[in-house]
Amino acid sequence: MGRSLTSIADLSDEEISHLFDLSRIFLEVNEREIPKVPALRGKTVATVFFENSTRTRLSFELAATRLSADVLTFTLGSSSVSKGESLRDTAETIESLGADLIVMRHSSSGSVKLVGSWLDIPVVNAGDGAHEHPTQALLDALTIMDHFHMNSRLDGLRVAIVGDVLHSRVARSNAQLLSRLGAEVNLVAPPALLPLDLSLWPVKSSFLLDEVLPQVDVIYMLRIQTERFSESILPSMEEFSRSFSLTANRLGRAGKGAIVMHPGPIIRGLEISAEVADSPRSLIRTQVKNGIGIRMAVLYWLLGTDRDRVDPQW
Amino acid sequence: MGRSLTSIADLSDEEISHLFDLSRIFLEVNEREIPKVPALRGKTVATVFFENSTRTRLSFELAATRLSADVLTFTLGSSSVSKGESLRDTAETIESLGADLIVMRHSSSGSVKLVGSWLDIPVVNAGDGAHEHPTQALLDALTIMDHFHMNSRLDGLRVAIVGDVLHSRVARSNAQLLSRLGAEVNLVAPPALLPLDLSLWPVKSSFLLDEVLPQVDVIYMLRIQTERFSESILPSMEEFSRSFSLTANRLGRAGKGAIVMHPGPIIRGLEISAEVADSPRSLIRTQVKNGIGIRMAVLYWLLGTDRDRVDPQW
Amino acid sequence: MGRSLTSIADLSDEEISHLFDLSRIFLEVNEREIPKVPALRGKTVATVFFENSTRTRLSFELAATRLSADVLTFTLGSSSVSKGESLRDTAETIESLGADLIVMRHSSSGSVKLVGSWLDIPVVNAGDGAHEHPTQALLDALTIMDHFHMNSRLDGLRVAIVGDVLHSRVARSNAQLLSRLGAEVNLVAPPALLPLDLSLWPVKSSFLLDEVLPQVDVIYMLRIQTERFSESILPSMEEFSRSFSLTANRLGRAGKGAIVMHPGPIIRGLEISAEVADSPRSLIRTQVKNGIGIRMAVLYWLLGTDRDRVDPQW
Repeated sequence: MGRSLTSIADLSDEEISHLFDLSRIFLEVNEREIPKVPALRGKTVATVFFENSTRTRLSFELAATRLSADVLTFTLGSSSVSKGESLRDTAETIESLGADLIVMRHSSSGSVKLVGSWLDIPVVNAGDGAHEHPTQALLDALTIMDHFHMNSRLDGLRVAIVGDVLHSRVARSNAQLLSRLGAEVNLVAPPALLPLDLSLWPVKSSFLLDEVLPQVDVIYMLRIQTERFSESILPSMEEFSRSFSLTANRLGRAGKGAIVMHPGPIIRGLEISAEVADSPRSLIRTQVKNGIGIRMAVLYWLLGTDRDRVDPQW
Repeated sequence: MGRSLTSIADLSDEEISHLFDLSRIFLEVNEREIPKVPALRGKTVATVFFENSTRTRLSFELAATRLSADVLTFTLGSSSVSKGESLRDTAETIESLGADLIVMRHSSSGSVKLVGSWLDIPVVNAGDGAHEHPTQALLDALTIMDHFHMNSRLDGLRVAIVGDVLHSRVARSNAQLLSRLGAEVNLVAPPALLPLDLSLWPVKSSFLLDEVLPQVDVIYMLRIQTERFSESILPSMEEFSRSFSLTANRLGRAGKGAIVMHPGPIIRGLEISAEVADSPRSLIRTQVKNGIGIRMAVLYWLLGTDRDRVDPQW
Repeated sequence: MGRSLTSIADLSDEEISHLFDLSRIFLEVNEREIPKVPALRGKTVATVFFENSTRTRLSFELAATRLSADVLTFTLGSSSVSKGESLRDTAETIESLGADLIVMRHSSSGSVKLVGSWLDIPVVNAGDGAHEHPTQALLDALTIMDHFHMNSRLDGLRVAIVGDVLHSRVARSNAQLLSRLGAEVNLVAPPALLPLDLSLWPVKSSFLLDEVLPQVDVIYMLRIQTERFSESILPSMEEFSRSFSLTANRLGRAGKGAIVMHPGPIIRGLEISAEVADSPRSLIRTQVKNGIGIRMAVLYWLLGTDRDRVDPQW
């Protein structure tokens, strides 16, 4: 088993800092007339998505392409999985085909780590169930850091993560990473959408978004999965939306410098209003852009020949 | 908003002529042992198809590849659109990912232009509802021109566009472009499949194919969308086919030099007989081939560093 | 019509031997830091799969990529075939788009050869109905050869091909190729799953796996298509599995040096137990790896400028 990235906990503080440095270099590369470097020429990156997520998959594939790697796309629809092939056999086949790294999304928590334990090549978790989505947390941290002109820490910044925390791998990875970087994280959700036991989470929690807003620098809205609201334990969608949807009016309660983030895809009018999504305070598009830099950094770090340095010729 | 190609009306006469010149250069490139030029190296072309059309999508993607651009394929099936993401958010995300140009197909007339108004990168209309399909018209005009050994005009040529004109974006773009180039366009369809008001179209119209055939140089058959014929206002499929299907027998009424064209995919025996489709008078395969040249020209013209010239080194 | 590979019978003994030599060269290339050669730069390989098979498609596409060819992926889901386009028109369109070679899978026996007869470019059969799958047989032969340290023949080796022989294109291609190379092939299946007339097959047959096992060097397990077992003529799945599933216990009856192969995807616990699949006697992963080499060899042989030699500079 090679080194992999399945969880924020896999990374040391030094490695996190190194990934931010690499990302900033690659984001500069992306501004060039020809935004490519030959760093991973001849390497093959396989994206293996058992759950659909075009935006995340394309982000990884474009990152690989910009590092001059080849891409092998494996999606569920057209796969042998429907013929009854096991996860292990699928993964081993992709390794045997010649993939040098697997980027994987799956609906089961822990599945990506399990696959990593079977293979000799690195795996990158692009989302496993309600567990983790580490590259999302890294790109979010980088976005916050750059916006507030901080270098590698987030000390003192106050971040509210708002919405369906309970089912969110994004919330889980972000809470961990942002806390480690020094931010004060507040999970804001109705009781039924918060984890039962938060004692191990390095966070505060709150049921009332309106009370939290005046004291935050970052309002991180989670995606609403509408299908959840059929479960009877939850509040109705209307009820939820009334208290937790980020409208322009509600955003007025936050400080002037507070920014709005969202992992996407957003549903305008549900968790966030169109006016807020398009306002200059929204960093949603910057997050997408930074995602390419972070994913280039992660791929280079796991596959580059000299991962701790970058070629000054680039 | 950058320059885009959403409609034939976007193009000046000089630009149309320039695109034909570029296409002929690129079609020569395509005959080489290594049919590639480095013109768009480092650029990323995204194909964003909300309606399936493998042939059109592959034509654009191959054109991009031959210009050394990278391709990012976004199709509906696997996308966040099914999670409720708006067209605007999808388009902005693709731009933020780093696409330099979007080639888009969508079922709504005007949607491609709308997307172009939201973005800073060019968009190319690969078919929007019953509105337009400008690269199809360009490749068709080029095919006719080259067949009749004309350089950049179609003066005096008589073109019949036959079939379901009412619902056809191909008819709309072709009628505009071919007329501007000097051709005399005749729309041939049963009354229920012609637009109600043709006063703004620079064309003639006719209900009787058999009468038109002896006087045309180009018989342009439109695709029949069989699902239309369930609508009660239309003639039955059999009735339509009896009068408008291009059989070898019917083709005999046309002059010897008249050619047959079709945008594809064809259904043999429905709008066109197998014998006609495979005859030397059919230019269907030439149309497909010229499509690569036109799309290379359009991509180069919108993305090349010096779009008005091409590198003599190629 | 150019040269194609639709069946093992298309190949002379010299050509088979040459393909093995090429494969071994390309498998060495695949071990390099940058596993690519510029052999097919500028060529476009189209994969046209009317039946899903991600593993086979990706194997061909990766092979093409490693030879520096461009890839054009055409899959049924998103294609005009659903609009009623004929196989011939689909194939001709792909050729007109600029493909230099088509790799095709289809559910109809003989369809790939038919397509080859319509086109000027080579076609490679990646599985046509219950007919043939020649690159699978080539990679299997290479795997056996290399394991037993033989150069280009399999003289004296005893191979049991076990399972649903009747419906298997893999069995058909393997029986032909392995026999031609000198192996003694034994088809092992219940009577209902053997072809009625084996007189033209250069093989023995048997109904009892347990009796065959002590006398074989290679146990080649076929994939079980569970949907077959609803047909009343067949034994029940349980009955079949009891007699033909390769468990560790049953494998104990074979000689110590006997190896286990399977074309994949496997269903653990059905035709093969997990213990056997993961044992060092299983060459399943080596088959997948060798598939890349064989497919690189086939593509190079059909498209390379000097197909009988390889550039010593590689």
